[in-house]
Amino acid sequence: MKTSEKMPEKTPIATLGAFGLIDRLAKTVELKQPSTLKGIGDDAAVVRYKKAATVVSAELFLEGIHFDLTYTPLKHLGYKLVTAGVSDIYAMNATPRQILLSIGLDKRFCVEEVEELYAGVKIACEHYGVDLAGGDTTTSLTGLTLHITVTGEAPEENIVYRSGGKQADLLCLTGDLGAAYMGLQLLEREKRVFDGNPRKQPQLEGYNYILQRHLKPEARKDIIELLAQHHILPTSMIDVSDGLASDALHLCKQSNCGVRIYLERLPIASETFRLADEIHIDAVTAALHGGDDYELLFTVPVALYDTIRKELPSVDIIGHLCPPSEGACLLTPDNQAIALTAQGWVG
Amino acid sequence: MKTSEKMPEKTPIATLGAFGLIDRLAKTVELKQPSTLKGIGDDAAVVRYKKAATVVSAELFLEGIHFDLTYTPLKHLGYKLVTAGVSDIYAMNATPRQILLSIGLDKRFCVEEVEELYAGVKIACEHYGVDLAGGDTTTSLTGLTLHITVTGEAPEENIVYRSGGKQADLLCLTGDLGAAYMGLQLLEREKRVFDGNPRKQPQLEGYNYILQRHLKPEARKDIIELLAQHHILPTSMIDVSDGLASDALHLCKQSNCGVRIYLERLPIASETFRLADEIHIDAVTAALHGGDDYELLFTVPVALYDTIRKELPSVDIIGHLCPPSEGACLLTPDNQAIALTAQGWVG
Repeated sequence: MKTSEKMPEKTPIATLGAFGLIDRLAKTVELKQPSTLKGIGDDAAVVRYKKAATVVSAELFLEGIHFDLTYTPLKHLGYKLVTAGVSDIYAMNATPRQILLSIGLDKRFCVEEVEELYAGVKIACEHYGVDLAGGDTTTSLTGLTLHITVTGEAPEENIVYRSGGKQADLLCLTGDLGAAYMGLQLLEREKRVFDGNPRKQPQLEGYNYILQRHLKPEARKDIIELLAQHHILPTSMIDVSDGLASDALHLCKQSNCGVRIYLERLPIASETFRLADEIHIDAVTAALHGGDDYELLFTVPVALYDTIRKELPSVDIIGHLCPPSEGACLLTPDNQAIALTAQGWVG
Repeated sequence: MKTSEKMPEKTPIATLGAFGLIDRLAKTVELKQPSTLKGIGDDAAVVRYKKAATVVSAELFLEGIHFDLTYTPLKHLGYKLVTAGVSDIYAMNATPRQILLSIGLDKRFCVEEVEELYAGVKIACEHYGVDLAGGDTTTSLTGLTLHITVTGEAPEENIVYRSGGKQADLLCLTGDLGAAYMGLQLLEREKRVFDGNPRKQPQLEGYNYILQRHLKPEARKDIIELLAQHHILPTSMIDVSDGLASDALHLCKQSNCGVRIYLERLPIASETFRLADEIHIDAVTAALHGGDDYELLFTVPVALYDTIRKELPSVDIIGHLCPPSEGACLLTPDNQAIALTAQGWVG
């Protein structure tokens, strides 16, 4: 590199101070939601909803547990954090409107890096139609700490809980499973290769989809809009973030039902199968326990079978609820019933 | 100790698993607020307020930055976290109703310790009249991580912002300043003594007040109730958590005013003076920059002077707003003006 080339700027946070940093970040934040009465810059955010009920979710993202900065770009991390937060609001059949972002920063970080993280948050805010309306910024001794609170609104009668599922209801799932987990496995493999030989370039070609599913997942805003458009009110709903097995069990427990899921109906992307094969992992196990999918799992009365097939073609009907005495199980194509357990691979 | 005596139980969190722990904690949580439609156990909490506006605050508490577990009992820490959260809601002249508590736990912690933390949170919930309605629980690699989101309500026209202060308004302050900071200095001193000689018992006698101010501070619910009772609507308000100097400057900046604060009117408790003297710290500096006070700083029109003196005798009138051109300063008894700066001792 010639000395005349400009190095990327690295401004120490200390040069601005905590308040200066917050001021600088806040200046770039635009409020676009009519429901935001007061955003960043007071003791609390103030919002006013026309619809009757307020929905609030919280997500904590910790370095070393939820993300590895070795291979996670900060902009992607900001986007993913917002996705994780709004996904919980969609899972209530509600519309997210505001987020509060809390950040604990250790000494490694410079102002430009925090701005990268914020850039990702702001792209996500634009995409999901939410305002960044507040939060807390502090020093951390121990790694990057992120927390997101999301507030949203819904008419009370439209809110869908985990507990409303009825026996015989169809179990519906958006998107596909296990891809984010396989994307993570790929990144972890390449990290190990790099650790062994830092001159090796990571081999990530041909795996765009699973990498995107891990690094920049999307929450299912589209599905909530489609459900509303076709006047479909699920009887119960949950977002799949801990793995299908675990989240289906939560839904069953709250709805006091059992469940039968048909193994051959589990939606798994071809890249997920391909990498699973390459690194000798069972793709179905990744689909059941991998987590981080941010898909929606919901139930509807069986009478809506045709409507779901016709109006929500991207949704798979993967099984149905049953009496609680029948338990929760996965049915193989040769009709073997395997009990569903919540044991994931992760923690 | 005789072997027949029972050791306190230490159940590893792994024996319950994350979901088991959440279930166990959730079982002990009662919902008491009519505005809580759905608490712990779904993707998000659901609340419904009768009043027009929803107020939301966020506080991140990190080990090593906000607390030191060497001398902070977990029950007190839980209480203090809630105090810090609701204080922001009171500072908007609003009523807190629900909290969402997010916790990152590393391997050191056992189930009983998490229950201790929750016990403190629940005592605070009872005291402030809020429901524990949700949150997130996760593993941490790096110390105890706590985050609280508080939601509350207020009629829109009653919300008090930092920005409403007018020139000549009286500057009012609840409680006293610098005590929490001096409590922290005392605990830090005794920690150093203990580190040097673990057989020494900590010398904390005679300092109950400053210790309580650090370990179990109270948010000023009482003041918000008194203001409502006497139909006093402050023109601006902020909670004093970063130190009076810093928070008064925030209020001035947002209100586009200068401020004059009279040094001899700063309320400082006798224990604060006593320890300051003992360890050679300037008590006024502690009052201005110490932080962690959780008092309310607010402004009212000068016409309310008599009302404040009569109806809120525990509130001190410490100065007044002035034109922004006059800046922000502290006036000494001999009429010297010292410019107010936000430079605290802490970070």
